[in-house]
Amino acid sequence: MDVYKRLEELEIKLPPLPPLAGIYKPVKQAGNLLYVSGQGSTESGIPKVTGRVGQERTVEEGQYAARLCALNALSNLHQFLGDLNRIKSVVKVLAFVASAEGFHRQPEVANGASQLLLDLFGQERGVGARSAIGTNELPGGITVEAEFIFEI
Amino acid sequence: MDVYKRLEELEIKLPPLPPLAGIYKPVKQAGNLLYVSGQGSTESGIPKVTGRVGQERTVEEGQYAARLCALNALSNLHQFLGDLNRIKSVVKVLAFVASAEGFHRQPEVANGASQLLLDLFGQERGVGARSAIGTNELPGGITVEAEFIFEI
Amino acid sequence: MDVYKRLEELEIKLPPLPPLAGIYKPVKQAGNLLYVSGQGSTESGIPKVTGRVGQERTVEEGQYAARLCALNALSNLHQFLGDLNRIKSVVKVLAFVASAEGFHRQPEVANGASQLLLDLFGQERGVGARSAIGTNELPGGITVEAEFIFEI
Repeated sequence: MDVYKRLEELEIKLPPLPPLAGIYKPVKQAGNLLYVSGQGSTESGIPKVTGRVGQERTVEEGQYAARLCALNALSNLHQFLGDLNRIKSVVKVLAFVASAEGFHRQPEVANGASQLLLDLFGQERGVGARSAIGTNELPGGITVEAEFIFEI
Repeated sequence: MDVYKRLEELEIKLPPLPPLAGIYKPVKQAGNLLYVSGQGSTESGIPKVTGRVGQERTVEEGQYAARLCALNALSNLHQFLGDLNRIKSVVKVLAFVASAEGFHRQPEVANGASQLLLDLFGQERGVGARSAIGTNELPGGITVEAEFIFEI
Repeated sequence: MDVYKRLEELEIKLPPLPPLAGIYKPVKQAGNLLYVSGQGSTESGIPKVTGRVGQERTVEEGQYAARLCALNALSNLHQFLGDLNRIKSVVKVLAFVASAEGFHRQPEVANGASQLLLDLFGQERGVGARSAIGTNELPGGITVEAEFIFEI
């Protein structure tokens, strides 16, 4: 399954490479693992989905925010690898969801990122370990920030 | 030291395998590392200890919650590995503790998970790196969620 | 570039080894990766910078807090390795910033840790992947807690 063909089939366009927002590398390789820095629900680095789920945002909006995080991760990986087909598997997703008091559906929100990776890479390659955690505040007021580990 | 004999000695029964709560694998292997998805203070996937420490829950109840996370991790590892004796060491624990305003004893809470792993695997194999972090909200309103890396 | 000479040039003294605050190892090696447990804005284990950024603390004070986390990590690595020059690169930093409601500049705060590692190890070795996350409460009321992965 060619990842770029799959992106076309799903009518997904990789977003522009997010600009750096501090002192870090978007992707850092150690052995055959690629650590992707925390990606936000931004577009070109500008907050696109902001606010806490359960208050300013619905679960569906949160899922869209999580999907943006995964798309930004893929843009960074495309830049780093040159070819997304070099990805062997998704190892891990750690998703933080800005959560209003009493909001408890973080895993459903994180599914927005996981579903995209599943759709693109399939069950075997595209699904890894995951944690979904609530938080009170995220950079730029974004709704979701997620970091990823991929294996090549 | 056989892990299953040790479980018997300590009169610990592994809990039922927690059901999936989203798009992820409970355990994902990369090289000789096993990444265990965030485990909660649940039983069979149903929240068992809920509420924030320092408000609805005491430190002791939080420790019991953290212990449940470790037990759920072990059930998943038993399912994945077939034999817990294949575990070479605990590499890392990242524990999130639902915390009331002004609650600052997250490491003591996380000890509930760490003590269990220490009791089962001993100081050399059973103790890894760890972070204990407060959070405002966790999935299902649980008191503790913890993710783990083990080495085989 | 010798790390200890660089520390001298920058007039930085490694802080005393932080005491253990629970059941964990300060540094755990798996393969050629070193997982460093969550380090706080403490000195000899005593909270040195406390309170939430955006309320009790300014961004600059938060950056100083993040720098302390990195210094404590280096003290632990010096103890573990005997020689910090064995570090090949910074793989990953995961920084949690105690954040007042509406505070959204966590990446700038995390830069306090990242800048120190950059100054000491240079752009190639000293900059890895990073996530900067807000949280409501941290152990001991500290302002920043950060965990690290280094490669040797």
